[in-house]
Amino acid sequence: MGIGDLMVESSVGVLRSCGDLKPDRVIVGNMFSGVGSKQEHLGAYLASSLGLINVPAYKVEAACGSGGAALHNAYLAVKSGESDAVLVTGVEKMTDLNVSEATSALAMADNQEYSASVGATFLSLNALTHRLYCSKYHVTREELASFPVLCHTNAVSSPHAMFRRSISVDDVIKSPIVSDPIRLLDSAPICDGAASVMVVSKRNLKRAPAGAVKIEASEVAVNVFGLAERPDPLDYIATRAATKRALAGSGRELRDIDTMEVHDAFSITSALALEAMGVSKKGGAPKDAQNGRFSRSGELPINTFGGLKARGHPVGASGVYEAAEAFMQLTGSAGQCQVKGAKTSLIHNMGGVDTTTAVHILSEVS
Amino acid sequence: MGIGDLMVESSVGVLRSCGDLKPDRVIVGNMFSGVGSKQEHLGAYLASSLGLINVPAYKVEAACGSGGAALHNAYLAVKSGESDAVLVTGVEKMTDLNVSEATSALAMADNQEYSASVGATFLSLNALTHRLYCSKYHVTREELASFPVLCHTNAVSSPHAMFRRSISVDDVIKSPIVSDPIRLLDSAPICDGAASVMVVSKRNLKRAPAGAVKIEASEVAVNVFGLAERPDPLDYIATRAATKRALAGSGRELRDIDTMEVHDAFSITSALALEAMGVSKKGGAPKDAQNGRFSRSGELPINTFGGLKARGHPVGASGVYEAAEAFMQLTGSAGQCQVKGAKTSLIHNMGGVDTTTAVHILSEVS
Repeated sequence: MGIGDLMVESSVGVLRSCGDLKPDRVIVGNMFSGVGSKQEHLGAYLASSLGLINVPAYKVEAACGSGGAALHNAYLAVKSGESDAVLVTGVEKMTDLNVSEATSALAMADNQEYSASVGATFLSLNALTHRLYCSKYHVTREELASFPVLCHTNAVSSPHAMFRRSISVDDVIKSPIVSDPIRLLDSAPICDGAASVMVVSKRNLKRAPAGAVKIEASEVAVNVFGLAERPDPLDYIATRAATKRALAGSGRELRDIDTMEVHDAFSITSALALEAMGVSKKGGAPKDAQNGRFSRSGELPINTFGGLKARGHPVGASGVYEAAEAFMQLTGSAGQCQVKGAKTSLIHNMGGVDTTTAVHILSEVS
Repeated sequence: MGIGDLMVESSVGVLRSCGDLKPDRVIVGNMFSGVGSKQEHLGAYLASSLGLINVPAYKVEAACGSGGAALHNAYLAVKSGESDAVLVTGVEKMTDLNVSEATSALAMADNQEYSASVGATFLSLNALTHRLYCSKYHVTREELASFPVLCHTNAVSSPHAMFRRSISVDDVIKSPIVSDPIRLLDSAPICDGAASVMVVSKRNLKRAPAGAVKIEASEVAVNVFGLAERPDPLDYIATRAATKRALAGSGRELRDIDTMEVHDAFSITSALALEAMGVSKKGGAPKDAQNGRFSRSGELPINTFGGLKARGHPVGASGVYEAAEAFMQLTGSAGQCQVKGAKTSLIHNMGGVDTTTAVHILSEVS
């Protein structure tokens, strides 16, 4: 499937579930369609493909956080009163590139002049934080491997997941090294995909046959652009700022969150994100994972459909996947992935190494 | 200058003119930094370069209409109440590509699978409309050449213009053919550039020492994505829809508009845009230009600083240039380009062949 097919299939799915509700705006989240498919202008492409002529349409990009940033812009459009129904589609077509090309494309998330040009890839930047983290907090690779193991366990019952099979800690730590100390099974895959949601105003809330959830807060924050420039490369300050603002904006505390989708591009990103949010103490997230705190039956289930690692990570789509998955949890339509009694979800989507982070808090509509 | 330098120089300029007003959000309009500079994630790049950590930042893309779409998203962010001061920077770095690569990059504005892949470039698509238009309405190439002649005349006194020299109709029609019947001097140049504006809420209106203008309306509309799929390839329906909505939204009529910036990527695009807006009758815009109607001393001055043709067309920046130029006209700071008594301006920015069109109406703050 080409990038257009991916967008359309996903959009048609959500439009069908929305009955006679027609989008008055189309926003596409995507990172690198220009490099990946020699195609820009995805907003008009998708709107026109759906027969939505004359609506506003455009693409929003924030590297792997493009999906979350697109959702945020839909939220602003509705909150401004200028839109009542915004189609948000996240999409990425990565597999027309070979692995080397895809690695270069992903490296565009960091500063090309200072990082990528000297050979630092997105993978190797995360490997540096992985190594520093393990050394500073005496965390073992076995502990960090709890995150991919958890994701694969959840993905077994996730119909839209890419890898519907469980793996063991041993599988992770014996998998090939991709950028020492990051191993293949610490890493989310390069893949294609698209996900869509509709963001509607209050007046349209009851019109969608598939039900609705409330966006309680929508926040985006940026960190220092180059990892090398940061006072503390282990401090995900954008995640912390966006989470703090989202909780304050919704009048929530962390303990109100029933499920969470965390941007687990690598095992290390799950740990650092959860710690920046204040869910775990510094250096403590991997142990929490190991002890089952984040499992679907645990205190705070995360990545309930497999996360980036096992559901897949078509980069510009991931933030919208997270929103769709939270929607399923909160409307009780998550099937075998359902977390019982889930009423409030937080979704966390990052571009780069916490360079741009989008956090949304969603809740059930009673 | 690299793409980062371009963004920063332009942003610092506008920030300096805004006194102690700090942006709480950064939006970058850009079409193809991935292909042009192997760099994405421009929102975080710019915000971080300016020391604006933790603010929301992202890129908005709608091909050559990216600048207008970025401005529109800043308008939504302020109107939603989520922002009080949004920095909007449009940027494009085109000259690191050779002409063939730049032509391929621009072709990403149309459908890659159906147009670009069979050799139709953005240039040749416009050439088809140019030929059809001249044949259908019996317009001569001399008449159409009035548009670039007008732009170059205006650019002579425009300090930020790329081509500060006048040209004659004869120069245009004797210039080399680039895609028959479009000639070199019918075409806006491939170039680098950046432009910035600040979009502020009412409460910040009086804080900018450089003055302020009001955004009366901000509209974006899309046309059918592929030119070949349109019922009438000469009908700029997105331009018509966006203009109509903008006029209705601001309670204006066309005769209230004192100056207009029209997206003159080619001579033909000026003509078709003005006719779709209802400024000229079908087939009549080139004669209106020839008769001086659109000159700086005419009834409706357009492209008062040289337009895309002579000021330059760094594609993702052009929509923001237009906004900055309208600002200068409406605050009486346009220098030798000043149109006396300009109180209301309309700016028109297109991605593709009227594929995505942004129209804004700006007015003086009294």
